[in-house]
Amino acid sequence: MKQVVRARHAIVGGEAVHDFAFVVDEGRITHTGDGAAIVADYPDVPCMDYGEDRLLAPGAVNGHSHCYQILLRGWADDWGFDRWRDDALYRIIPQLEPEELYWVALAAFVEMLGNGITTVVEFFYLNGAGTARLEKLVEAAIDCGIRLVVARAWMDAPYAPPIFREDIASARRDTIALAQELRSAGILVCPAPHSLHAASPEMTRAAVDLARELDVPAHMHVAEARYEVEQVRSRTGLTPIAYLDSLGVLGPRFVAVHAIWQTEEEKDLMGDRGAALIHNPVTNQYLGDGIADVVGLRRRGVRIGLGTDCDLRPCIYDEMRAATFLQKTATLDGATLSARDAWLMGTRDCARAVGVEAGDFAEGCYADWCVIDRTHPSFHPWSHPVNQLVYISDPGIVVETFVGARKVSDRRRAQRYGNERIGAELRKVAQRLRLPLDHVNAPG
Amino acid sequence: MKQVVRARHAIVGGEAVHDFAFVVDEGRITHTGDGAAIVADYPDVPCMDYGEDRLLAPGAVNGHSHCYQILLRGWADDWGFDRWRDDALYRIIPQLEPEELYWVALAAFVEMLGNGITTVVEFFYLNGAGTARLEKLVEAAIDCGIRLVVARAWMDAPYAPPIFREDIASARRDTIALAQELRSAGILVCPAPHSLHAASPEMTRAAVDLARELDVPAHMHVAEARYEVEQVRSRTGLTPIAYLDSLGVLGPRFVAVHAIWQTEEEKDLMGDRGAALIHNPVTNQYLGDGIADVVGLRRRGVRIGLGTDCDLRPCIYDEMRAATFLQKTATLDGATLSARDAWLMGTRDCARAVGVEAGDFAEGCYADWCVIDRTHPSFHPWSHPVNQLVYISDPGIVVETFVGARKVSDRRRAQRYGNERIGAELRKVAQRLRLPLDHVNAPG
Repeated sequence: MKQVVRARHAIVGGEAVHDFAFVVDEGRITHTGDGAAIVADYPDVPCMDYGEDRLLAPGAVNGHSHCYQILLRGWADDWGFDRWRDDALYRIIPQLEPEELYWVALAAFVEMLGNGITTVVEFFYLNGAGTARLEKLVEAAIDCGIRLVVARAWMDAPYAPPIFREDIASARRDTIALAQELRSAGILVCPAPHSLHAASPEMTRAAVDLARELDVPAHMHVAEARYEVEQVRSRTGLTPIAYLDSLGVLGPRFVAVHAIWQTEEEKDLMGDRGAALIHNPVTNQYLGDGIADVVGLRRRGVRIGLGTDCDLRPCIYDEMRAATFLQKTATLDGATLSARDAWLMGTRDCARAVGVEAGDFAEGCYADWCVIDRTHPSFHPWSHPVNQLVYISDPGIVVETFVGARKVSDRRRAQRYGNERIGAELRKVAQRLRLPLDHVNAPG
Repeated sequence: MKQVVRARHAIVGGEAVHDFAFVVDEGRITHTGDGAAIVADYPDVPCMDYGEDRLLAPGAVNGHSHCYQILLRGWADDWGFDRWRDDALYRIIPQLEPEELYWVALAAFVEMLGNGITTVVEFFYLNGAGTARLEKLVEAAIDCGIRLVVARAWMDAPYAPPIFREDIASARRDTIALAQELRSAGILVCPAPHSLHAASPEMTRAAVDLARELDVPAHMHVAEARYEVEQVRSRTGLTPIAYLDSLGVLGPRFVAVHAIWQTEEEKDLMGDRGAALIHNPVTNQYLGDGIADVVGLRRRGVRIGLGTDCDLRPCIYDEMRAATFLQKTATLDGATLSARDAWLMGTRDCARAVGVEAGDFAEGCYADWCVIDRTHPSFHPWSHPVNQLVYISDPGIVVETFVGARKVSDRRRAQRYGNERIGAELRKVAQRLRLPLDHVNAPG
């Protein structure tokens, strides 16, 4: 069924636009243009008309998430990367049963929708013990209505917990089956060799080969912490990006996640090969990883999107702000990386990097949008809405979220389950896993 | 009138506490202790009793603000410090008429209260043309109920706009009169030599001498941008902190604002003299100023508080998060500067640095608190509330704010004027000053 959506205030291509409208058919945008003109052109089509007190923004795109990490919030902090990974992440996540995973994923996705995220790329580890857990993740996404991309991890390193580990043949077989099964639900499945430390060179190559066969991107963690550079160099004689290039995997469908520690030559390589980057500036700070040279990589034409990664607060507006702030800090130049650059990195550019037609009000894109409260105090006095969203506003300004033109979140919580039920179920999971709830036995 | 306030969940001294209560008399906390015990001890005193769904936190303390800068939001971004100061700050602020200043200040203060800030230090420039503007700032604070500290700027540099500039005698006379007048309203007035570039050495010394006479702190911008170091060195042969020490002004009542660019010797000096620092990590990033060595200064015993400074979003929880993240980034160590450290810097430690008995639930402190919604999605699953407030939650979690045991903000906005009126008045000011509203003629 066709529908017209009209707004007095909208953000299109990173610019503020007055009286804008678009036509939706089957969940996609088919036409865009001046509000009055579109309404006149489609007289018999129902019109949703947003007034002066509302701003329409394309939904944010979360280019990298591990939703189960919301279980670590509030207790596994201030530990440094190694302890955080070993004593929290790798200890807790493998214990998750499929039904528990459903609730954890649902909680994270509902929070994302409330914060204006409409597409999420889930980099999913728990594939070593079969498909039940991943199916539950998919079920949670379908139930709450978020647009899901599955970056299905491939890991074969001996050190990985058994529930993460598999051989190349089964990873390939399962990824192909999943991609076929989920195609009709509009869910993209991408092979995701975990990293140069957790996936062998053979597995990495096989995963990227499969991405080519399926015509989808391949996601991979690269050079998040400085030690990884030395590790790769001592094993291969090359730095990580250069080594990936020597494996023949660096190309337009390669999506490097983090990629903080790079030489100038590696940055050139990323640009030359057309590889993309998902930048996770909040996590990179939280774990003490370092500052990626986003300005230098953009200069070389590298496509850059944003991700929330470890789920402190799954909010892409936070990542936008953190992205510009880190670059201004690293360059000592407040004029570096504008609000508009950051906005596009969290919407249109991220969608393009991960292979989803979303993140903008443009013909052919999915009709995914947020309705924002222009009367919120942080908007006084109203000026450029992109700058205000990136630099000032908090998630509380998002009053409704639509995915494929269907309302999936609002202040009364339109999801299948309400906040209270989700909170109770998540707490049950946390109790079974003996997480330090209520700060009773929080570790030192 | 006495009152008992009891909470199932509270933050006391940076730690999570269960079933806690305090007694309030005349707006101050007179006793604290176990909830059940306090209620039993004061059977005839009315009790406010918060249930399982609420968390009580001491109000945040904003150690450095220029509230009129909310007029720059959304358009004067991504310019770099010099252009921002010259083409926005120094162009717009001097034009403010007293009545306009009232509304700008009210808007900023009400937003702060909504974000859980109960005390604000306003570093106020517009003193060269008499006291009318500052009186309006004070009126706004009294009307909305925020606890105000006036850091009354002293400036005599020839380059300063005339409305900022005055001579030492009139700055002194006016500051003394103001301090006497506002004492009964509980408002602390502190001399604030603007900076080494905008106040002469004579004026700086006179201001700090007056702070001693009045027994209050003295606030001063120091070494925010790197160029200031060279400027001071070429004029005096000394770096800024060392030069301030040579003037005899560096001592326990000296509050340095920013103080990013320091040698190791200067950090030792700050520690040795007992000086305090107000750290503004969000602004320091926004303007490309650099990263203050908070970890190094804390190691030397320097007392550190947090400020929102240029009012992107006036929220101390943001500053807490930014403070730990910047240190983790600078040191490449995710274990550096914990959530609790940051929490105390934004509450108790900041109150101590600026000379106000607030920022904690402790005997003798003002009864300033926030009521926080424990059911907010960002609290799932409930663990350590300090970590969750610092790393995850957004300002939307604050449902009520109390100053001196009086409710001054809630979701229905308990202030004298509502959000709509404040927004309309602020817009009127912005229109008269020809700010680029609605992104009509936003500069390049």
